[in-house]
Amino acid sequence: MKTKATIIFAACVWISCMGQAQIPGTTTLDLEKAARIAHAAHERAMQDEWNVAIVILDAGGHMLYFKRMDGTQLASIDVAIEKAKTALFYKRPTKIFQDRLAQGEAAILSLPDMMPFEGGLPVTIDGVVVGSIGVSGVTAQQDGIIAAAGLNAL
Amino acid sequence: MKTKATIIFAACVWISCMGQAQIPGTTTLDLEKAARIAHAAHERAMQDEWNVAIVILDAGGHMLYFKRMDGTQLASIDVAIEKAKTALFYKRPTKIFQDRLAQGEAAILSLPDMMPFEGGLPVTIDGVVVGSIGVSGVTAQQDGIIAAAGLNAL
Amino acid sequence: MKTKATIIFAACVWISCMGQAQIPGTTTLDLEKAARIAHAAHERAMQDEWNVAIVILDAGGHMLYFKRMDGTQLASIDVAIEKAKTALFYKRPTKIFQDRLAQGEAAILSLPDMMPFEGGLPVTIDGVVVGSIGVSGVTAQQDGIIAAAGLNAL
Amino acid sequence: MKTKATIIFAACVWISCMGQAQIPGTTTLDLEKAARIAHAAHERAMQDEWNVAIVILDAGGHMLYFKRMDGTQLASIDVAIEKAKTALFYKRPTKIFQDRLAQGEAAILSLPDMMPFEGGLPVTIDGVVVGSIGVSGVTAQQDGIIAAAGLNAL
Repeated sequence: MKTKATIIFAACVWISCMGQAQIPGTTTLDLEKAARIAHAAHERAMQDEWNVAIVILDAGGHMLYFKRMDGTQLASIDVAIEKAKTALFYKRPTKIFQDRLAQGEAAILSLPDMMPFEGGLPVTIDGVVVGSIGVSGVTAQQDGIIAAAGLNAL
Repeated sequence: MKTKATIIFAACVWISCMGQAQIPGTTTLDLEKAARIAHAAHERAMQDEWNVAIVILDAGGHMLYFKRMDGTQLASIDVAIEKAKTALFYKRPTKIFQDRLAQGEAAILSLPDMMPFEGGLPVTIDGVVVGSIGVSGVTAQQDGIIAAAGLNAL
Repeated sequence: MKTKATIIFAACVWISCMGQAQIPGTTTLDLEKAARIAHAAHERAMQDEWNVAIVILDAGGHMLYFKRMDGTQLASIDVAIEKAKTALFYKRPTKIFQDRLAQGEAAILSLPDMMPFEGGLPVTIDGVVVGSIGVSGVTAQQDGIIAAAGLNAL
Repeated sequence: MKTKATIIFAACVWISCMGQAQIPGTTTLDLEKAARIAHAAHERAMQDEWNVAIVILDAGGHMLYFKRMDGTQLASIDVAIEKAKTALFYKRPTKIFQDRLAQGEAAILSLPDMMPFEGGLPVTIDGVVVGSIGVSGVTAQQDGIIAAAGLNAL
């Protein structure tokens, strides 16, 4: 009985510790993960010599990481940030709003924190939105390819 | 004579009280009523496991009460507030503007304090607009169902 | 052996579920907790017949809960929100900035998201800032008393 | 004589070419250099376990690179950016304005793009201001130490 109790206790401690470790580890986007995502997106952009700005936001929509490749148009700084904010605040890819607008749903234009161009994606860990990535600089479709490559790094 | 005077005086007091009671008493939205409306809306949302933000504004368009259910997308904070503001400032349900925009009336987009999505309703007491409710988080139609359930509590 | 394995498995599931529950429970401020804090602050305000606006923000500085008592000056809506934002963004009571400014540190006035009046407090769980409370309506000192009473409810 | 003139001429051409090559090479802040500065600042911050946000702006005051260490207060995102903007727009360390304000020159508060706290420094190459660094998260003096360490990497 003693042994069994000990095993159960050990299992409890082990699982409990895992739970503790998971709290900041899996439900938060830290700088290390943000940099990893941005690095992967940057690598993808360089592959095609695409010049873009890349931003990673945390779960509250606050900036964690940003880099702008040489030669990127200045407007892309804010466009990237706004795409990331849209993806985070609405918990979905910005492409969804681009498509709805293209299909004639003009009301999209009146939504707050709305940048209806592909290139913004929520970052999800264990089904929870923990942040987002925004990319801008080339076409919206290419921006989207870069953003997706970033997410693949997680 | 004395009796007649007393009766007239009593009638005056009674009418005066009614008048008094109606002006600030029934045509103002106080915190108690606002919370009651929001509570009913919240109950309706939980019934279908819909996660939304609910806001109640007073007759001046200023916030009286707000609550955001767990899991609601962050964008819905501002969308709910803007829907309520639209309903209050234009004294009509936001769905009216959604429909007009959907029918091609793009000029709607240039109106101030305009959130042309269902889910915002004026709160009316004795025919007077005394405030408004705004709901956001699920589809515009579902937001509208929740807002209407809130009004039913009055 | 089978029984032991079953017990361990059951324990695992049970603890795992607890772990799941703990993730939002201990490091997140949910609506239930936010309402509890606001309710306690409201009770304290009523005790002295103080009319105030009370707001609770989440870890990203986004509104979770808000209520404004009848008779509260309209300015207190934004003042309460800004106090809560200051407490959250700077991870400390707003009174610290009020004191520094009173001691002549004028540079405080140029800081972003800065409302240097007592009445804003971070909400901390297990040493982590998970949100904040902001109160405004009476004197800054009284606002501070109400905010502190709110935190005591946790 | 002729030979000497030829040699001098050749040397001039050679140096001139080097100069040409140096113009875009040394008077522009590219992403590689920005990341190097930020990396050195980050290293210095970690040495004392200081949590800060670090930003590098280009010659136009536009963001090139940003990173926020885990645990940094959210306000430091904007404070770091504003410090860097001040250093860039006024071509001098932000500490100069902090000192002038501390000496009673309140007019400093009315200047645009002004964040009068140590921690913002212009980045200069060959005597030309090509960008700036902004650091925020610990005390203004410590932020300044980190920013200076970043510049040393150039």
